[in-house]
Amino acid sequence: MAVIADITVSLDGYVTGPNPGPSNGLGDGGEALHAWVFASDSPQDRDVLERSMARYGAVVMGRRLFDVVDGPSGWSEDRGFGAGAEPDGAPPVFVVTHTQPEHVRLADQMHIVTEGVAVAVARAVDAAGDKDVSVMGGGSVIRSVLAEGLADRLVLHVAPLLLGSGTPLFTADEPLRASLHIDDVVATMHATHMTYLVGAVH
Amino acid sequence: MAVIADITVSLDGYVTGPNPGPSNGLGDGGEALHAWVFASDSPQDRDVLERSMARYGAVVMGRRLFDVVDGPSGWSEDRGFGAGAEPDGAPPVFVVTHTQPEHVRLADQMHIVTEGVAVAVARAVDAAGDKDVSVMGGGSVIRSVLAEGLADRLVLHVAPLLLGSGTPLFTADEPLRASLHIDDVVATMHATHMTYLVGAVH
Repeated sequence: MAVIADITVSLDGYVTGPNPGPSNGLGDGGEALHAWVFASDSPQDRDVLERSMARYGAVVMGRRLFDVVDGPSGWSEDRGFGAGAEPDGAPPVFVVTHTQPEHVRLADQMHIVTEGVAVAVARAVDAAGDKDVSVMGGGSVIRSVLAEGLADRLVLHVAPLLLGSGTPLFTADEPLRASLHIDDVVATMHATHMTYLVGAVH
Repeated sequence: MAVIADITVSLDGYVTGPNPGPSNGLGDGGEALHAWVFASDSPQDRDVLERSMARYGAVVMGRRLFDVVDGPSGWSEDRGFGAGAEPDGAPPVFVVTHTQPEHVRLADQMHIVTEGVAVAVARAVDAAGDKDVSVMGGGSVIRSVLAEGLADRLVLHVAPLLLGSGTPLFTADEPLRASLHIDDVVATMHATHMTYLVGAVH
């Protein structure tokens, strides 16, 4: 069992393009980040995706990512991410947010966590059993799990593009210093999938 | 013949740690960036280095990098980078700077260019003959050659560490947008060597 911070990032370090949000997904040009998921016919890309989906027993994500994944409906509508649409056996998802939303009907496997990222990870670890926990973003949640020493591995899928602006994964405002150990690198046309073991972060 | 922007960068996108300068090299903790050059016994790291050195017929670098490479002496002393110390056959180096330094004695293969990065690259291309030109930094010179469409390839040696702060390779102040094409990836314990073909930059 491992806690794995797992996110796709441009070569210049952005996890979205500019102007991300529920009505604009991953921001201007941001959808190109995920060509390795949606536009690749590489067996290696598919293998990376399928292996991680098979490995993950629970997912942690932040509120903003939840809203993006959920599309324009967001919190304010009568349904949350995947309500009624998730296949049986979809892993439980723990959404980190500061305040409990009032108007949202969540799918059974969705859980709101208002006590911070460490509690969300702990609950996900419990729920995952022998499987791994995927912390899938956004950037601020990834930074928090790294800063709080909660992540065993960091997986970056580095897309071959420069976005120029958007949401940075790492920010000078919240600097993280760490030695990492390269565990595995898989390169395809659409991404370089880099897995690191996370050492002490300070 | 190709113009290759070639630089080592931390996973969080810094080409130096904080406080870089002639008396502090690549900044606090920055020397760890180049473990793949100086502390690796990997034949693959050595091969990456030797192949690029064999391929480069001329080098372009910025003034600040020159000063760092040159150590504490910098411009103000009576000798420049490698004066008298370069082996025969060392490639010519074109140093981009705004103002001609007054007190510097340069080795024969060193040239000062005050007319901007495009002129430096053009002179390097002339000097390189059939070989490639390496634009080896620092960050601002790399950004300029990308922004001006002068680079055919971008080689990033991504070191497995988070520096947290320092000199960023890509900055929100000078955003570059580009589609890149992955050409080659070599992964070792000390770095992931990523070569991209550079498409249109805007």
